[in-house]
Amino acid sequence: MSQRGPYAKGIAKRREIIDVTLDIVARRGWRQTSNAEIASRVGLSQAGLVHYYGTREELAIAVLQSKDQYDRQTFFDPNPTFEGFIDVITHNTSVPGLVQLYVECASEATIDGHAAREFFEGRVARIRALFAKVIENGQASGDVGPDVDIPVTSSILMAAADGLQLQWLLDRSVDMAAQLRLMWDGICTHSWPDASTSVPGAAGG
Amino acid sequence: MSQRGPYAKGIAKRREIIDVTLDIVARRGWRQTSNAEIASRVGLSQAGLVHYYGTREELAIAVLQSKDQYDRQTFFDPNPTFEGFIDVITHNTSVPGLVQLYVECASEATIDGHAAREFFEGRVARIRALFAKVIENGQASGDVGPDVDIPVTSSILMAAADGLQLQWLLDRSVDMAAQLRLMWDGICTHSWPDASTSVPGAAGG
Repeated sequence: MSQRGPYAKGIAKRREIIDVTLDIVARRGWRQTSNAEIASRVGLSQAGLVHYYGTREELAIAVLQSKDQYDRQTFFDPNPTFEGFIDVITHNTSVPGLVQLYVECASEATIDGHAAREFFEGRVARIRALFAKVIENGQASGDVGPDVDIPVTSSILMAAADGLQLQWLLDRSVDMAAQLRLMWDGICTHSWPDASTSVPGAAGG
Repeated sequence: MSQRGPYAKGIAKRREIIDVTLDIVARRGWRQTSNAEIASRVGLSQAGLVHYYGTREELAIAVLQSKDQYDRQTFFDPNPTFEGFIDVITHNTSVPGLVQLYVECASEATIDGHAAREFFEGRVARIRALFAKVIENGQASGDVGPDVDIPVTSSILMAAADGLQLQWLLDRSVDMAAQLRLMWDGICTHSWPDASTSVPGAAGG
């Protein structure tokens, strides 16, 4: 028991640091979030903060992991659907600082040997698997037809969402949810056998 | 004449700096491209290089502008088509360092007041307009039907290409061209009036 006390306390403090950081970053952005402010909000010195998160990169990855976990629990459990995905996108418009941190980390992570690379490699696999489940659920409900390439479509949906966030960060009038819905409608239609044969000139036919 | 000589010489030197930088960055990436190496390759001191490009950001933007210009002239003139776009994507797989620089600058540019923000705002408008022309040409050739929302589809195509580049930088086995082709086939099919009415359960019925 004497050893479990401090261990549980450490986990709780890490949780508190992440929650406070998420809150500040969501509203103001990563670069306007100083270690000094985080430390002060959780009752630590800056040296104390470094004890829990040694580098800014480590803290950023923990924040993004925590956001993913929140999104998964809030919008996708128990059964992921396209509506749940649209809810995530809509939620993201209320946390621009986290979206900005995400796109910046995601692009920096592509550099060989970057601290966040492993996280983002794993994340691509997780999000593709999530979209695969969304498509399978769409097939089960009759929205999506049988002729869909699930791995490729999952990958493209993830890509479109990532790319639209870049456009939205530059111009907040971009309606990400509406655009992704239109794309989903296209996938629903295109995935039925009749769609690609009954149409003049389509698919190089 | 005495004033035009140095002016033309300055333009030629800027061109030479960009060409040399493009070459090094394409192969090795932006972070492995030092001012010292660029300066040495164009016969300048590092101070001399700064005379032409005051900051690394300024040089990066000039490099990306130059790549866009090359792509436009090589793959889209005189008449942009989807095949031209696929050729750009295929070409990009041979210049990973430039793709990496692009995704990193594009995400950093979303920060308010960033030096590259204006360039990327203009670029989104230019690429959307290019895709609009690609779609109109597709309609003229009979591949694309009349029922297409050109602004939204242009925006989604750009987004998907941006997002796929992120995935490809993490995993070079991602076949960007094949995935974008599949997406284009979907757009071709979905844009004909029959497509969305003859299909059970599609587009919310």
